[in-house]
Amino acid sequence: MADKTALIGVDWGSSSVRAFRIAAGGTILDTRRARDGVFTGQGAYEARLRTLLGDWLTRDVPILLCGMIGSDRGWLPAPYIAAPTSFADLKPIRAPFDRPAFIVPGVSFTDGEICEVMRGEETLLAGLEETDVTVCLPGTHSKWAQIEGGRLTRFRTYMTGELRAAVLANGALATGVEQVASPDAFAQGLRAAADGATRALFQARARRLLGQLKPEHTAAFVDGVLIGAEIAQEPAQTVTLIASGAIAAQYGAALADRACTVDPETLAARGLLRIARGAGLL
Amino acid sequence: MADKTALIGVDWGSSSVRAFRIAAGGTILDTRRARDGVFTGQGAYEARLRTLLGDWLTRDVPILLCGMIGSDRGWLPAPYIAAPTSFADLKPIRAPFDRPAFIVPGVSFTDGEICEVMRGEETLLAGLEETDVTVCLPGTHSKWAQIEGGRLTRFRTYMTGELRAAVLANGALATGVEQVASPDAFAQGLRAAADGATRALFQARARRLLGQLKPEHTAAFVDGVLIGAEIAQEPAQTVTLIASGAIAAQYGAALADRACTVDPETLAARGLLRIARGAGLL
Repeated sequence: MADKTALIGVDWGSSSVRAFRIAAGGTILDTRRARDGVFTGQGAYEARLRTLLGDWLTRDVPILLCGMIGSDRGWLPAPYIAAPTSFADLKPIRAPFDRPAFIVPGVSFTDGEICEVMRGEETLLAGLEETDVTVCLPGTHSKWAQIEGGRLTRFRTYMTGELRAAVLANGALATGVEQVASPDAFAQGLRAAADGATRALFQARARRLLGQLKPEHTAAFVDGVLIGAEIAQEPAQTVTLIASGAIAAQYGAALADRACTVDPETLAARGLLRIARGAGLL
Repeated sequence: MADKTALIGVDWGSSSVRAFRIAAGGTILDTRRARDGVFTGQGAYEARLRTLLGDWLTRDVPILLCGMIGSDRGWLPAPYIAAPTSFADLKPIRAPFDRPAFIVPGVSFTDGEICEVMRGEETLLAGLEETDVTVCLPGTHSKWAQIEGGRLTRFRTYMTGELRAAVLANGALATGVEQVASPDAFAQGLRAAADGATRALFQARARRLLGQLKPEHTAAFVDGVLIGAEIAQEPAQTVTLIASGAIAAQYGAALADRACTVDPETLAARGLLRIARGAGLL
């Protein structure tokens, strides 16, 4: 049986990397994952890519990379394309590799003083079939994007995942106790978010001291606060949620019947294929 | 000339300690300061207090301590008195010392699910002469308190100082560049806070990447965001600001003509004296 691989796609983010063998119809034929992110590794991207892809490199297909690999801390800096933009305008740049390898540019957006940047999310958004939708992409820096007429018109960023890690690692909210899920503590956090995140976060400390929150539910409460702070700014009646696992469940609970969830890896593969086609790489 | 010391007061917080020789009228006769906080030192409070006070201990006057020294991580846990409370109800507890030494209790407040705690700020509030006022006490955990009819009726906490330190130390906002003051970047941060703190904080990253914020102005921008997030929740038309130095200047600029500023050390000394008198220690 002939190999059906049309494209090797690589989503190389801050903390991890995922590689896909993608068929012409968008099906993922094989996936490789490593905790070998742009911010956690030590440069030498050409060698690391060779190790990650291994025997996949015997295939005569282009390689398309997206994510922080294109940042000023990555392999080589790819530009930001200004939104509003069509996905066909995200022209990849050539990477220094002995096979045809390319990096997807990021997207920027400005509105008065407000500045926004994304790298990696634009590729997942390119994989969507809907042409008019509000999209939530949870993460270290959660993005909420507007797709209108099939174009990425604007987006907002919330420092959700980074703040979660920072407040739980040290300071008044650190516990030294293993955290366990708690839908009740998460719901408490969502309600507290109405007073603003910087006030609501301290509630995790005060409620613990006064016996209203268990130490092992601190993370669940903090998740409620930070996710609630996002949703408080986002009035859309229906939201496409690009997430999986526990994070998808939390945002799903917070958005109730407003959200429909789509798997990020499926979208990454479809988006890479769409951008590769748009740029004439296939 | 006879020594006029009526009380030795000690404000022993998380990161530093300040001791005062206080005259019967509230005048501070002498001050000693050390970077020897409850969270930065290693227990052994009796010995540390003896070192700090030194020759002051030859005076036959009581010692009154306030702040995190009375927390479960301090010398011995003093209770929380529930607000609304009069300052006369803040009865100090005896500390294990060979001289008459006492620790001021903290104050708690609950309203439905909301919980609040303070330790140290109640003593500064006790030093105020106004009987009906909204008070802002900036810090690691900024407090906004309501004094009504001379009683502490309720208060709110914002995790301002802790979040500032956390986001500037690591992650997307860390710069490795020495920070310099910038009223313009601070004002930018204040305006950005209107979109919520978790969104506004990421603006420091995005504006730097797109050339709209200098790396050395990151801290000033973050200060604007976090102080702006406090003020957005606090509608009081006039505010008594208990702060000094650069922090007083920032809050003063943010509150414009709504604030009148009072020096924290003066209030600490007056508050300790008032609580000592109320408890019959003098």
